[in-house]
Amino acid sequence: MYSFKNDYGEGAHPRILEALLKYNTTQEEGYGLDRHSQNAISIIRDLVGGPEADVHFLSGGTQTNLIAISSFLRPHEACISAISGHIATHEAGAIEATGHKLLCVNSDTGKIHPELIEPVLAEHHFEHMVKPRLVYISNPTELGTVYSKSELETLHAYCRSRNLLLYVDGARLGAALACRNANLTLKDMYNLTDAFFIGGTKLGALLGEAMVIANKQLGDDFRYLIKQRGGLLAKGRILGIQFEELLKDNLYLQLAEHANSMANYLAEQLAKAGCTFWRDSPTNQIFPVIDNQVIEKLSQDFEFYIWSAIDENHSAIRLVTSWATPQEAVEGFLQGYRKAVV
Amino acid sequence: MYSFKNDYGEGAHPRILEALLKYNTTQEEGYGLDRHSQNAISIIRDLVGGPEADVHFLSGGTQTNLIAISSFLRPHEACISAISGHIATHEAGAIEATGHKLLCVNSDTGKIHPELIEPVLAEHHFEHMVKPRLVYISNPTELGTVYSKSELETLHAYCRSRNLLLYVDGARLGAALACRNANLTLKDMYNLTDAFFIGGTKLGALLGEAMVIANKQLGDDFRYLIKQRGGLLAKGRILGIQFEELLKDNLYLQLAEHANSMANYLAEQLAKAGCTFWRDSPTNQIFPVIDNQVIEKLSQDFEFYIWSAIDENHSAIRLVTSWATPQEAVEGFLQGYRKAVV
Amino acid sequence: MYSFKNDYGEGAHPRILEALLKYNTTQEEGYGLDRHSQNAISIIRDLVGGPEADVHFLSGGTQTNLIAISSFLRPHEACISAISGHIATHEAGAIEATGHKLLCVNSDTGKIHPELIEPVLAEHHFEHMVKPRLVYISNPTELGTVYSKSELETLHAYCRSRNLLLYVDGARLGAALACRNANLTLKDMYNLTDAFFIGGTKLGALLGEAMVIANKQLGDDFRYLIKQRGGLLAKGRILGIQFEELLKDNLYLQLAEHANSMANYLAEQLAKAGCTFWRDSPTNQIFPVIDNQVIEKLSQDFEFYIWSAIDENHSAIRLVTSWATPQEAVEGFLQGYRKAVV
Amino acid sequence: MYSFKNDYGEGAHPRILEALLKYNTTQEEGYGLDRHSQNAISIIRDLVGGPEADVHFLSGGTQTNLIAISSFLRPHEACISAISGHIATHEAGAIEATGHKLLCVNSDTGKIHPELIEPVLAEHHFEHMVKPRLVYISNPTELGTVYSKSELETLHAYCRSRNLLLYVDGARLGAALACRNANLTLKDMYNLTDAFFIGGTKLGALLGEAMVIANKQLGDDFRYLIKQRGGLLAKGRILGIQFEELLKDNLYLQLAEHANSMANYLAEQLAKAGCTFWRDSPTNQIFPVIDNQVIEKLSQDFEFYIWSAIDENHSAIRLVTSWATPQEAVEGFLQGYRKAVV
Repeated sequence: MYSFKNDYGEGAHPRILEALLKYNTTQEEGYGLDRHSQNAISIIRDLVGGPEADVHFLSGGTQTNLIAISSFLRPHEACISAISGHIATHEAGAIEATGHKLLCVNSDTGKIHPELIEPVLAEHHFEHMVKPRLVYISNPTELGTVYSKSELETLHAYCRSRNLLLYVDGARLGAALACRNANLTLKDMYNLTDAFFIGGTKLGALLGEAMVIANKQLGDDFRYLIKQRGGLLAKGRILGIQFEELLKDNLYLQLAEHANSMANYLAEQLAKAGCTFWRDSPTNQIFPVIDNQVIEKLSQDFEFYIWSAIDENHSAIRLVTSWATPQEAVEGFLQGYRKAVV
Repeated sequence: MYSFKNDYGEGAHPRILEALLKYNTTQEEGYGLDRHSQNAISIIRDLVGGPEADVHFLSGGTQTNLIAISSFLRPHEACISAISGHIATHEAGAIEATGHKLLCVNSDTGKIHPELIEPVLAEHHFEHMVKPRLVYISNPTELGTVYSKSELETLHAYCRSRNLLLYVDGARLGAALACRNANLTLKDMYNLTDAFFIGGTKLGALLGEAMVIANKQLGDDFRYLIKQRGGLLAKGRILGIQFEELLKDNLYLQLAEHANSMANYLAEQLAKAGCTFWRDSPTNQIFPVIDNQVIEKLSQDFEFYIWSAIDENHSAIRLVTSWATPQEAVEGFLQGYRKAVV
Repeated sequence: MYSFKNDYGEGAHPRILEALLKYNTTQEEGYGLDRHSQNAISIIRDLVGGPEADVHFLSGGTQTNLIAISSFLRPHEACISAISGHIATHEAGAIEATGHKLLCVNSDTGKIHPELIEPVLAEHHFEHMVKPRLVYISNPTELGTVYSKSELETLHAYCRSRNLLLYVDGARLGAALACRNANLTLKDMYNLTDAFFIGGTKLGALLGEAMVIANKQLGDDFRYLIKQRGGLLAKGRILGIQFEELLKDNLYLQLAEHANSMANYLAEQLAKAGCTFWRDSPTNQIFPVIDNQVIEKLSQDFEFYIWSAIDENHSAIRLVTSWATPQEAVEGFLQGYRKAVV
Repeated sequence: MYSFKNDYGEGAHPRILEALLKYNTTQEEGYGLDRHSQNAISIIRDLVGGPEADVHFLSGGTQTNLIAISSFLRPHEACISAISGHIATHEAGAIEATGHKLLCVNSDTGKIHPELIEPVLAEHHFEHMVKPRLVYISNPTELGTVYSKSELETLHAYCRSRNLLLYVDGARLGAALACRNANLTLKDMYNLTDAFFIGGTKLGALLGEAMVIANKQLGDDFRYLIKQRGGLLAKGRILGIQFEELLKDNLYLQLAEHANSMANYLAEQLAKAGCTFWRDSPTNQIFPVIDNQVIEKLSQDFEFYIWSAIDENHSAIRLVTSWATPQEAVEGFLQGYRKAVV
């Protein structure tokens, strides 16, 4: 039984465990002041082209989002998100629990652009309503779509002009960077956002996200916020070591490329076999629309989520590939599909 | 340069890394629903003698404290703690950040007993003040002292009689359980508290604390709270695997015994060499009072914190041993001390 | 220049000021423990038929909503509201500021019924999402519509069956009770909700809302919550005196009937003059659709809000009447309208 | 039975009710945008000598404190207060409920000076602890003592030098301004603080406090915060009208002078009759130490709080006078005392 349910079903890339083992017995400072974390910060500063970038390592995406947003906003300031945004749907109200309202906009692609934001600003114009202040986007989005460099440039310029912060949830950032059409680099991420994070958990680490704060005014005292929200690991070294390894020799991008290519191949082959798609995604999540009876048959050998009912007889399923997905699993699924649709 | 600064300076016990490696490539459910976490829950239920105990794995002590306390209390309810309590001093206001006031009591030993609580209850008697509802203790305390079984029985009975919850921060719980005079077992912890946690980070894990909720009324929906506060790891398996390993073959207690015995030996030998102590501690933190010039000399070869100025010429230092402290490091320190005091 | 902008443009009904004057120099206990507040509580208990009802007086609607909801819910529990709900639009994120997410449903009438709630429950089924727990409705709604007794019965029964609390914002409750078709009494409000409030500010008081908690399990320690959120007035007497007066000799309902009848008359006459309406409202807010040029002319003599653009040439305006609206103002408006549309 | 329990036992000064009556039927804008509130703001700007001062009217002291402090601070920033500070004892954890820790210092006089703050700053030096950022003082303090102009200058200069905000709870500010030895004016309050409020509730108003923000960087968006915390009254006029009246013809200071002089006279006469005092207070709260049997006798005719046990046979009581205290009540108490001590 192979699972395409998510991209965190396995442990870590072997090189990461090797590195943890290699440095295991050396004594290090606690709470992220160890040499590995400091070194990983330097590597990230180089990669983003920001020698003064504020970089912090955290345990997971929800934690990172809630610490960042509650640190950046004053109590009456709100966050604009797509309805499908992770903070809006799958974080159990984490942002609201820190006191901030979400203002959600509809978007078929899961992406946000200025035309969607404009009416929110127009509506929220006085003190009986919250004040929109931060735009939250995910890249890739929760629907697998990606912001191109040019889209990000437009959004960033718009946010600047309207005094909005632009924050990017990069839980699967590698998948966006590895997507050639997007034409995006870490340097672009740094230059076109106020803050973003580089997700490790979903790209080969045991756990870990690297928060990068580009906007100088937002970085102050960030470690206080991490500590206060319970996010400062005593053995911060385990995050530092993992990011050192992930970012060395381009491993991070290679893992993302593998995940993307597995999904791209699956999608191409399913399309060839006549399959349509609920949403077009160039990254490691795809959403084929499949006959319910076929879904039932596939379920005997594969795990995946049924994402959305399309009509009486069809549903979109979600297939997620990861750095660890073997070619055989993909071929197996395709074989199963072809057999079932006959 | 050997460090006695804390008990989280090294990585994990080798058996833990081996186990992570062993299960690394198997696919598992996410968010703590994997087989290892489920198995670790069973093991803990057996150890505490509570087949229905609510058990949850979290990343660190501050996170565990803030999630538990904010889950257990209504907004106007407050938490009683010793002034030296970790939540009162070293968690950056994490409890207050969830909306709850701390009511702190003075205690030389770092321990709380009914006589210290009584005046707090007497003072807080109406709705212009917060309502004391939960007693927070650490075992061992932040000063290395330990609650005996009989002290815990007394405190627990008192809390029951005054409608107070009793919650125990067990960041170093192993050290208390391994302390023979205390005469405490995990079963006692379960029977004599409303909730407590078994600390992994400071006893051989990479990270991880196991929350055990004994009071049936407090366990509801606890996973929602974990998720909302950013504490639910996608790869929850890494916590499950570590606790499986720690609790197998008594490893956890053995590691604690080693840490305690190293500290006990250090203390005995220092005492023989004429040293007095700021606080008496039977666990892995000790507080010898040392001449400032001697401290300076020792600092050339060892790292440790200067904890409290005693008089013009003397200070108490804190020496912490861990599961990883080698006998040679202890002998080296003693040698250095003897040489310096001549 | 007469204003139909809202129902809080004047001070208080003269009888209220007289009462404040009458009792002004008598010394009373503070913080709502005065004889007037106690007496007003008794009166309300009689009116709702609940000798054990928890009754508390607060300053305004937003304050009442935020204290009630944050008192009733645990941190991960959320509130279902219509998109047009006051808490969702015009309270500056007050509910989120206490940590709770709103789950908003679309409703043309501003009213909520079980069919709108059901999909919200279906969607929010596990701990990665908030847990729906309280249904917030306004009666009358923000669109002037009213829940009939039978609608409230259905909603209440549904909430019971799904373990949801039903809470009613009664900022303009009098207008609903005075609406004959609704067939609703204070006793019904008490029997068919978990908690509701009787709005004073918008019905003749200087300030003041009377919170009535019907569900015994929700009333505990409510005064702590009021104090903690800054809602306990030192001179609580001023709220007690006002509610004593409002609820004596049926004054409250009479004021509401006047406001409703002024609006009803306005609506009838406008309809006769050919006007249509954006929403049908039997209460003291009406939404006629008027030619923009006519609106401009009317604006020279009357104040009101333009509520919604209908087409290029027409807009819905909002006209609000109050306990203080004189017949002449209404006639004046009608005259102005008739002149302008010629 | 006359009560010396507090200074909010009566209603409002007659001139205030007259003013409310006078303007009662005029229509005004809501939410503090009415002409009276705007005029009262102008008056206050004149009085403090700050034509650009941010001025806002709120309902009560706890509300004002919690809105101000939660508006001024980031989540990890804490508030320094005397242990006897109102926010520390009698606001039901209102500040913590907005997420901020209080750091309390011991002070016999209830006053704070730099020497008390310095060790707090020294202790809180890194991100495992909260960051002290705002100094909260009350003037007069909860013990009736007053900051002199020179003490305030010293404290203000110190706060500036240590990057601390200075915020003054002025629930009884009039009593401090009316205290000649203090040599303080509203202009001084404005020049020597970042923000302070002028208390109305305890000095003749029905309710109302006037927040004055002197520090330009703190005033932004304050109305959002007021709305979000439930503090924006729909009929804001009632606060504006009261402050217009209170601040006209020096009424506010006259009321304070009356209250002070009644208390001063009581204290002088009690001292002459041999009474000592728990704390020395030049304002309208005094704390005579009285034989318990005498207290019992006095309790038959007068209400007051027993504040603190002094020894087996004596207690300090608290006597509070107000703008409404008649000379006869004071004479009555003195007579009772003299009779009882014989």
